[in-house]
This record gives sequence, structure tokens and C-alpha cells, in this order.
Amino acid sequence: MRTTTVGVIRIATTGPGDVSGLMAMIGSGAIDPAAILAILGKTEGNGGVNDFTREYAVAALCTALAPKLGLTPHEVEQRIAFVMSGGTEGVLSPHITVFTRQEVAQRPAGISGKRMSIGMAHTRDFLPEELGRTAQIAETAKAVSAAMADAGIADVADVHFVQIKCPLLTSDRVEAAAGRGKKTATTSAYTSMAYSRGASALGVAVALGEIGSDIRDEDVLRRYDLFSKVASTSSGIELMHNVVIVLGNSAASASEFEIGHAVMDDAIDAPAVMAALKSVGFGADPQPGRELVNIFAKAEASPNGAVRGFRHTMLEDTDISSTRHARAAVGGLIAGLAGTGAVYVSGGAEHQGPAGGGPVAVIARLKH
Amino acid sequence: MRTTTVGVIRIATTGPGDVSGLMAMIGSGAIDPAAILAILGKTEGNGGVNDFTREYAVAALCTALAPKLGLTPHEVEQRIAFVMSGGTEGVLSPHITVFTRQEVAQRPAGISGKRMSIGMAHTRDFLPEELGRTAQIAETAKAVSAAMADAGIADVADVHFVQIKCPLLTSDRVEAAAGRGKKTATTSAYTSMAYSRGASALGVAVALGEIGSDIRDEDVLRRYDLFSKVASTSSGIELMHNVVIVLGNSAASASEFEIGHAVMDDAIDAPAVMAALKSVGFGADPQPGRELVNIFAKAEASPNGAVRGFRHTMLEDTDISSTRHARAAVGGLIAGLAGTGAVYVSGGAEHQGPAGGGPVAVIARLKH
Amino acid sequence: MRTTTVGVIRIATTGPGDVSGLMAMIGSGAIDPAAILAILGKTEGNGGVNDFTREYAVAALCTALAPKLGLTPHEVEQRIAFVMSGGTEGVLSPHITVFTRQEVAQRPAGISGKRMSIGMAHTRDFLPEELGRTAQIAETAKAVSAAMADAGIADVADVHFVQIKCPLLTSDRVEAAAGRGKKTATTSAYTSMAYSRGASALGVAVALGEIGSDIRDEDVLRRYDLFSKVASTSSGIELMHNVVIVLGNSAASASEFEIGHAVMDDAIDAPAVMAALKSVGFGADPQPGRELVNIFAKAEASPNGAVRGFRHTMLEDTDISSTRHARAAVGGLIAGLAGTGAVYVSGGAEHQGPAGGGPVAVIARLKH
Amino acid sequence: MRTTTVGVIRIATTGPGDVSGLMAMIGSGAIDPAAILAILGKTEGNGGVNDFTREYAVAALCTALAPKLGLTPHEVEQRIAFVMSGGTEGVLSPHITVFTRQEVAQRPAGISGKRMSIGMAHTRDFLPEELGRTAQIAETAKAVSAAMADAGIADVADVHFVQIKCPLLTSDRVEAAAGRGKKTATTSAYTSMAYSRGASALGVAVALGEIGSDIRDEDVLRRYDLFSKVASTSSGIELMHNVVIVLGNSAASASEFEIGHAVMDDAIDAPAVMAALKSVGFGADPQPGRELVNIFAKAEASPNGAVRGFRHTMLEDTDISSTRHARAAVGGLIAGLAGTGAVYVSGGAEHQGPAGGGPVAVIARLKH
Repeated sequence: MRTTTVGVIRIATTGPGDVSGLMAMIGSGAIDPAAILAILGKTEGNGGVNDFTREYAVAALCTALAPKLGLTPHEVEQRIAFVMSGGTEGVLSPHITVFTRQEVAQRPAGISGKRMSIGMAHTRDFLPEELGRTAQIAETAKAVSAAMADAGIADVADVHFVQIKCPLLTSDRVEAAAGRGKKTATTSAYTSMAYSRGASALGVAVALGEIGSDIRDEDVLRRYDLFSKVASTSSGIELMHNVVIVLGNSAASASEFEIGHAVMDDAIDAPAVMAALKSVGFGADPQPGRELVNIFAKAEASPNGAVRGFRHTMLEDTDISSTRHARAAVGGLIAGLAGTGAVYVSGGAEHQGPAGGGPVAVIARLKH
Repeated sequence: MRTTTVGVIRIATTGPGDVSGLMAMIGSGAIDPAAILAILGKTEGNGGVNDFTREYAVAALCTALAPKLGLTPHEVEQRIAFVMSGGTEGVLSPHITVFTRQEVAQRPAGISGKRMSIGMAHTRDFLPEELGRTAQIAETAKAVSAAMADAGIADVADVHFVQIKCPLLTSDRVEAAAGRGKKTATTSAYTSMAYSRGASALGVAVALGEIGSDIRDEDVLRRYDLFSKVASTSSGIELMHNVVIVLGNSAASASEFEIGHAVMDDAIDAPAVMAALKSVGFGADPQPGRELVNIFAKAEASPNGAVRGFRHTMLEDTDISSTRHARAAVGGLIAGLAGTGAVYVSGGAEHQGPAGGGPVAVIARLKH
Repeated sequence: MRTTTVGVIRIATTGPGDVSGLMAMIGSGAIDPAAILAILGKTEGNGGVNDFTREYAVAALCTALAPKLGLTPHEVEQRIAFVMSGGTEGVLSPHITVFTRQEVAQRPAGISGKRMSIGMAHTRDFLPEELGRTAQIAETAKAVSAAMADAGIADVADVHFVQIKCPLLTSDRVEAAAGRGKKTATTSAYTSMAYSRGASALGVAVALGEIGSDIRDEDVLRRYDLFSKVASTSSGIELMHNVVIVLGNSAASASEFEIGHAVMDDAIDAPAVMAALKSVGFGADPQPGRELVNIFAKAEASPNGAVRGFRHTMLEDTDISSTRHARAAVGGLIAGLAGTGAVYVSGGAEHQGPAGGGPVAVIARLKH
Repeated sequence: MRTTTVGVIRIATTGPGDVSGLMAMIGSGAIDPAAILAILGKTEGNGGVNDFTREYAVAALCTALAPKLGLTPHEVEQRIAFVMSGGTEGVLSPHITVFTRQEVAQRPAGISGKRMSIGMAHTRDFLPEELGRTAQIAETAKAVSAAMADAGIADVADVHFVQIKCPLLTSDRVEAAAGRGKKTATTSAYTSMAYSRGASALGVAVALGEIGSDIRDEDVLRRYDLFSKVASTSSGIELMHNVVIVLGNSAASASEFEIGHAVMDDAIDAPAVMAALKSVGFGADPQPGRELVNIFAKAEASPNGAVRGFRHTMLEDTDISSTRHARAAVGGLIAGLAGTGAVYVSGGAEHQGPAGGGPVAVIARLKH
């Protein structure tokens, strides 16, 4: 088995088109552009269908990285997994997290135990009518397994976060399907984002054995008892396939980083956030020599309209979408417990954690 | 000195016009309508200039209480202090908190120490051009002192929360002033809410000796080093004077309740929220026989555009006002630490706590 | 056949709770409260699920009219049809239109031809799972026929506007249905507004013979070739049945008013607006002695994402709902051609006019 | 005097990053990239401070044009004037209008009269504290005169539209000024957009002799009786100087195009729109052989809160900014009269036309 080392660097941005931080680190040698596997970002759009900050950020990064990699911008976009989650409501702060991976000859002597590892895979392109349905679930499950192998992770218990980027429906795509006599899961672009996220998350759950593989089309966005504890899915207008990134710990990794996770049962589950922090050495009695790199979490308005018995108004607000409400609230809680707003809290947690809750993963850097 | 007892009851609402919970408690005898001094509520509007859920809630309450009190609805509105804070973003849950006060012959034997007390006062009506300026500050300071006396509180250290309801400017009011040759502090209705909240808070700070009384017009919304640690001010379209409600602890109170507070230094100051909880017996090692009644806090987007060095986007969002962002985020944090979204988090914390932060008060009920 | 006279008075409001204009006209004798049949209003909320300005306006009107009618507010709400359409985007101006009806002994000598008449009917309460489906369509059709009879209109060609107020689904209602093992047409409150409006409009089309009666559940919000040219439907949270108001011209009416209509083929159909104006004597060569009372129109974002081949962005905007966009745009056009923003333009025109278009009716007052 | 020919091509876009239409026309030879002087666009963002669709569109265009011009993207941005106006509310349709200019040896024989001409100039970079004040006014006036000369226009009566792109304040810029001991006109980014637009428009009015040059800082956004009838100004985060583009008719132009204009007195001034159309041969009795190329207009919520005596709610809406309301409404009117939503209606008309109104210019293409 090959040994890899993984880097995780969080870089603040001054706007969706800002690549200066990353370029400076490449310039100084702190980041080797050829080692970049994935970039996850929080951009400051509305996180909805018409959030163009995501594609703008990707375009800016591809254009900037192209000469460094000797590729065209389009080739950069094929090579690196870009996952931009729109929406920095409340105290959330725009930033990107750059994941690098390099092979190393062998593990340094000082490293023991499992360390953070990363793997990646893609599905094929989907037809519009496949989004939010079993085809998307099954293809995603296959890609998750492939990404685990790519990460050198054999045990599902070592998988702590599976980030997926998935497509959505636009008017054009719905009409294209209709033109072929096919009905999409929904005709609403906005609703399609939920379907795509939900089916992708169920694909993770299937791959990790969290649920059985006998899911039906009608379970998506309905049977919320079916979920993954580590899936995080984001839909964007810019692609028609799923990109799967598996984050976990592996004995084959020689990285300085460790990842852990917990599951928030609802949007105010502070103990879960603290448990996730504790799982990588933070908490009431923090281990020395560790620094917080980033937190990755999903947030949603609980579909039953209440949190611990108290009514919330997120789902019935015509002015602000519920995903924006949820990111703001959960972002506020996590930022408070983490001490920073530069965390990755993404909206739309259908089948990602229990209804109204969501996964929360923490990456720590070990100083030695 | 007279001895009073104070009641604090939190009641969930199903909408801004919902009075059924209060009416049921009056019907059962749990609340004596004649004892109601003030009602603070969170209503589910946008919290901005055109948030009519506040006045709707007040109208519904006045209409419902009128026959119980043998008054007209208008007389009810004069008698009881209604403070409706619009905006239940994120996990915040619409509710009202009913404060009652009754004189009792003497303190029951079992009660020792200071207990929660409440006092109230009004300023005169302001002219539009007085809002956000020294006239509003000075009149508010006088009213705070009057309300302290009404609460039986002599020591400013016993004041833990001063809730003020204050006016805002509308196009009509700006024009009325202009017609008299007077220039208002701003011509924007939205901005005027900040001016009025800020000047009112400075009035509290003056009254409690937190700052000197030599404030100038130009300090309002500029010198954010001047603030009160216990002021909470909300502006609404429905009045032209300030209503001041002082909450604190007093040896003259025989109530079952206790109040404490802390100051959040910024919007992610989780330790301050925990300190406020601890001040009335909650926290890591909670005292038995106590239940949380409600938390009252103010939230705002830090005016310098950052929280602990990380940029936030609240002030530059044209789609969602920064007050909505801030309530959602701080509401998420407080709800997480309190275990409930039915807390009173109000937006617009100008001169209420340090810039970007705000006061947080907690009321506990002692079971015996 | 009885002879009736109908009054139509437009009154500007200063807010959703403002009843002063109506009360002044009752005080002066200009309006007999006992003759009020219906009040249609534009209130300044968001027009969505959480638009409380509608119920606030109704509550304020009922409370104010109660003593004038010797009824309780609740009885007033049962007696008069209140249809509040939320959303005064752009130049639209908040106002109410009061419709009165009185029997008269006989037609005055000076009146010839058909004059404006009004009729009203209700359906039974619907179950949540009936909304947006054939049950709502069939019951509505029956009520339209009943309202025509009430208006003294026999010929469907004399019907120029059918205003319907219909229910929507809330989380509670969806759960209530689910508790009985029933699935509602949608679980989204917002989407349910469209279903309810659409089914109600189809009911009008059936009653007026514009389409056949063999509609199926699955045609609602899909077969947009099925529509009524005179239906205008608004959904609100405050009721569970449909209220139907038929406006047309009748030989049995002795009123000073005349009504006409046209159908906008799309949201920029200026010629249709001008045709509607011309149908009651306005236009390039206006008839003397007539004044415009009000215009009633429906607006929607064309579901195919384009207007005359040019893409619009209303359906993919996560920040502003498409109904708000559409009201603003169509309101701007109609206000421009009418010379006033105090017109009734209501959003959500599903099955009301062709896809992307909507009915537009004009009421004129004849001075003699 | 040199003779120039001018091209004006409107191209629909599928998103802010879509350059395919322009590239196709360059590919087919329909547009010579070297001749492009300016590109005005409507992009589908919110038009506010955080509207990144503008800079994204510019970045995409610069990147695409760079290889065609043998320049770097940055050099393209310096060479071509890009004015992206954010906000396609209602029926407005995203598009760009490409303006080209080329010198020709002499006027073709068939062309008589004045034809459309275009000129351009820049101001120096402004300091943050100069925005919205006399420095910006005076520098803009100088640039307008320079752009007129560049267009070969000597008579101010031949100037029909002056498009200006101007800066805004961000938190950073406000702080930078404060750091130098300077106070900016406002600390609000959003309000700064209005100041910058207003001062720029006053600069046009000064240059064209519409008002005197004795403007004071305090007149900006206050003395709305001072305005230009042809100024159109848009603020954006991406620059610190003003870019001035003068559009008019000139005897030195050999172009196929003609431009005319009118001034809307308020947001519902349909006759003004019709007058502008008529000025270039459209209207009730249209001249043959002409086609409409585009309409350029400015829209705003009237600052006094009413349109022809009826209250509007645009200025007091906390959920939707007034610029979005105004664009939607005026866009609806102009689209209705023009028969297309692909028109350039831009928000924020401070000192551009009378208060609440704005300029409207029409470009026609003469077929021969």
C-alpha cells in the first residue's frame, strides 16, 4: 500500500474572485500546486439556484492555477475537485480549504496511529430525470467506495466526512427531459437542489452500510429516518455528475492531520459539536500541541417545523430561504464553540444526519 | 418600602395574532390580568421598518385583554408595556414573556437574598428631530432612574437588564420635521431605527453611571466605546416616546425569580453566555431546583466588518439586513447553550454592549 | 328579479391596520356599513406564507366594523368577504376596495344597458388533502354558479372577474392529513399556495364553460393550456374554504359602475391592458363622464422561464420569490397605463389566463 | 474632423459568465474585437454592494477577449469600458450591449443628418472621502467634456445618454480614510452607492450646462431639483475612478444608428417612454425600416414615498432594497411598451432625472 501525506490549509478570501491568498502560498512554496486534490470553499452568495459566486470562485481559481499547472483553466477544473458552498450568513466567514495529497516513500518514525487521508472519485454524468432518484443513489454509492479505496481506507468506521458536489435542475434541463418524454423529480430548480443533495447522501449511507441498498425513488425527501452520519452534499448549477471526496483516517497516511466527527441531532445540538471537537483532542481538557484547522458541518431547518418542541419559522419564510436561516443559526453555534466564523457550514442537510440535524467533522493539526 | 412579587411566564405563540396561550392562563387563574406590567415578545416579522407583526401582536393582545381589564384596547396599550421584537430568524421561536407584579404584605419566611424585581417609566413624546440625539439620551436617562425607583432598586449593580422600546422615523415624520425647518438625524427609516436604539442605550449608560453624561449628538452611532452593559433597545413604528423597563434583583421582592447577566464581547462569545447562565445557578455544575425561564440578549453585526479577525458579510448584504443575520447567528449560539430556541434575541445592539457584542441576561425560577 | 345597486369605493391605507379611511366614509354616510358585501385589499406584506399583513388587515377591519354592524368581530368576518392580497412591490400602493350592494325598488329612468353587479358564495371547508385537487375544483365550480345567480347574471359572457380567496397548507395541516394517512398535494406551504390558487381557477373555468369538467388531479399546475380568462385567486392562511365573488354586468343592476376585462397573454402585454381600459370607455379616445375606479389583475412569472423569447430570472431567484417579481413588473406596466399605482395586482396566476399572463379587469364609474 | 462609424449589438446571455454569444459574433466576423469601445450589460445579481455578478461578467469577458486582442485580461479591462448593471428583476432579461467604433475614410453617400456617435473618458482615481462630494462632481464634469470631444459632439443638445461607472465605499475603504483622519460621506457601503451615483450625475449636469457649477457637498442626495436629463450612473466595487461614456448624434458619424431620449417625471411616466420611442421613429405611426436595438433607462423609488399622490412602500421594505423594487416596476413598464424585457434599466437614479423619475434613451437601427 502506498503511503501518502495530506495537507489541509484554510485561507481567508476577500471575495469570490479572490485567489491572492492561495497564490501567495504557492509563491512561497507553502503549497505545491501539483499536489492540490480538492478545494472546498464558502462563498458569499445566497447558496441558492442563482448563486453565481460558486462558479465565479471556481473560474477564478482555475484561471489562476492554470499557468502553475501548465494546463488550461478547463483542464484544471477537471483535475481538482472544487466544492464551493454558497452562503456565509451571520458570522460565517468566506474562505477556502485546500486539500493536498502527495505520495511519500514511507511513514516518518514519529508518526503513530491513523492519520488523515483523502480520496476522490466521480460518477458519470446524470440525465435530468435521474437526479434525486435511485440512479443517482446507486452511482454515488459506487463512487464512495472508489474514493475510500483511493484514500487507503478499508474500514467504514474510519470515514469521517464524505463531501459530495452534485447537480441541480434548471428550467432548461427540465424541458430537455420533458422533450424526451421524461418527468423530472420536480420542476422547481430550488426543490431540485434538495432532491439531488438527498439522493447523494443516501448514496453515501448505502456505501457505508448505514442503511440497506433497497431505497426507492419515493423515499427521497420523505423517509428521513434514512440518513448518513458523515455525508455532506452541495448542489451547484455547474456540473451534471457527482464528485465524491472521502475524508478519514488511515494507517497509510503520514499527514500531520487528524479528523473526527459527531452527528448533531438537531440544529441546537451543542453537545454534538463539543463531542466532535473532543474527538480530535479539543474540549474541556484540550490536548497540547494541536490546532483547529476547520470544521465541516451541514445544517437544515427541521422539516417538522420545530426544534425540541418549539416552532421555528424557517420553512414558512417567503423572504429568506430556509437554507440561509439554517446556515446562519448553526454557523452561529459552531463558530461560538470553535471560536471562529471561518468554518464550513453548508445548507441543505437532507438525509445528512437525522431530520433537522447534520454531521459535524473537525480537522486538527498535530504540531509534531 | 413596599414589598412586591413578580411573575415571569414564557408562552409560545402560533402567530403574531395568537393570544390563546395567554388567555388560557388567565382563564385558569395562573395569570391575573390586572397584575400584568409588561409583555415582551418575539414576533416573526423581519424586524425592520415594515415589520407589522409587532403592532399586530400588540393589537391582538390589547383587544383580548380589554374585556378582562374592563378597559378599551387603547387604554390597555397605555397601561401595559408591550415590547415586541420582530425577527425569529434561524432557530428562534416566536413567544411572549409576561411580566406581572403585585404588592404583598410581607416577604414569606423562606425567601432570603435579593429576588427579581421590575420597574417601569416612560419618557415624553419626542419630536422627529430629537430621535438619535441628546434629547432622547437625557430623557431616557431620567426615565431609567424613575424605573429603578419603581422597581425598588437603589444600587445600579442590581440592575441586570433595561429593556427600552423607542420610536423610529418614517417618511412622514421626516417631512413633518422638514416642514418645521428641522433636519432629522437621518432621512432613512431603516437607519433611524439604529439612531433611536443607540441614543436610548446611551441614556441607560448615563443613568447607571456606566459613562459620563457629556454625550454629544455626533457620538451616537460613532463612539462605540460608549455603551451600556445591560441596555436592550428596540425601535418600532407605533410610538413616539420611550418606554423603559428595568429588570433587576431587590431585597424588596418576594418573587420566585432571579436575574443575572453578562456581556458578550462579540457575536461568538460563548463563554459570556455561559457566564450569564452560571450567574443564576446554571452551568457546568447546576444548582438543583432551578429552571430556566428565558434569556434576553441583543445581537448585532460588528461594525468593523469582522469577528475575531475574520471578515463577515452581514453589512454588505443587500438581500438580508444585517440585523436579521445577527439575530440568526447569535440566536443559534444562545439556543444551543440554553437548549431552546424560545429565547429573546433582539437585533440592533448599537451602544448596547461593545461594538459587535451585546448584553445577555438570564432569568431563573427557583422552585422554592 | 330583484334590482340591486352596487357601490365600489377605493380607499388608500397608511398601513395594514389602517381603517381610518373607511371609518370616515361610514361616519360621513358615504358608505352604509350594512351594505358592505366584500372588501378587496392590497396589503404591504410579502404575499407569501408568512405574510401576516393580510390577517392583520382583516382583524382591524372586523374590529372596527363590529360596533357599526352590531356584531362581534368574528361575525363580521363571516358576513363580509375579505380578500387581502399581500404584496405592494414597486409602485403598487396599499389600498382597499369596498364593494357594497343594496336592493332598490326599481331602476332609475336614466340608466340603460347592463351595469355592474356582484354576487357571492362559499364552498364548504376543505380537508388539507383536498387542496389543489379535483375536490377543490368541483366545489369551487358549484360556488361560482351560485355566486352568478346571486349577482343576477345568467350569461357567462357578462362575468368579467371572479375573485376567489382560498386556503393554503401549513406544516400543521400537512401533518394533520398525514396523521389520517392522507398525502397532501405538496408538503411545502409555499407550493401549496400555487396548488390552491390553480385548482380554484380551474373551478371558475369549469363553471363558465371555458374548459370541460373532466379535469384530473395531475392537470393542476401542469396543463397550463387549461385556464380561466376571468379568475383571480389568492391563498391565505386564515381560512379552509373558498370564498367566491363574481363581478360582472347585469340588466338587474342599477349601479353607476361598469366592468370590462381582457386577458394578458404575457407579463408585458400592454395592448391587453389598453383593451381592458377601452372596454369600459377609456383609451385613446376616452368617453367623457367616466372615471377609473380600479383595475384588478393577476401576474405571474411565465413557467417556461422566458417572456417573448427572452429569459427572465424570476423563477431561479432564491432571494425574492417569483410572485413578488411578477407583481412588481406587471404592477409597473398597469400603473403606467392607468396613471396610478393604487391598482389591485395580485400574484400567482396559475390557470388564471395563459401561462405567464393573466386576466385584467377594469371598473369605471359613470358620472351620470 | 475624423469620421467614425459606430456599432451597437445587443446579445442575450445565459448567465453572468456567459460569453458565448459575443465570441460567436467575433468568430463569424460580425464583431471586430479591436473595435469594441464599451460593453454595457445587465447581469442577474441583486445590484447591491454584494452583487458579484458584475465583476464576474467583466472577468469572463476580459478572459475571453484577451487572446482575440493579444492582451492580458487586465489590459482588456483597461482598454474597454465595461459597465455592468446588476439586477434583472421582474421581466428584465440579462444581456450585454456591445458598442464598437471605427474610423472610416468618409461618410457613405446615402447617409444624411446626424447619426449615433460615442465617446469615452476617465477621471483619475478618487480617494474614499472624495466620493459623493464636489471633487467627484468636478472631475466627472471634466471627463464628460472630454468624452463629448472624443465623440465628435459639440452641441450639448446632441448628447442623449451619458453612462458613468463609478466607485462605492466598502468597510475597508471607509477605514482607510479614517486612518488618514478623513471622514467619508457615509460609512454604509449601500448608501455610498447612492452618493457616488448622485455626485457623478451632477457632474454630467454641470458639464452639459443643465445646472450651474456651484454645487456644494451638502447638495448631494438632498437638492433633488438639481439633476441631469441624460445621466445614467452605476456604482460598482471594482474601481476607484469614474468611466464616462457619452452617447449622442453627430454629423461626423457614419453609423446606421440613431439615439434619442426623454425624461420620465416619475416611475409610471408611460408618455415619456413613448416620447423617447417616437424620437427615433417608433410610436403610434412608426417609420418603416427601423428596428429597436435597446432602451437605456434609470429607475428609482421616489424619495418622498409616493407616486402621484399614492404611497409606495419601496423605501420602507427591509426585505427588498428599493433599487430592486424600482428596476422591477420601471422595467415592467418599459418592457411592455417596447415589447421586450431585454432592456437596460438600471437602479439608483439620484440626480438622474427629477426625483423619482429618470432618463430614458432609445437606440434605433436604420436599415439603410
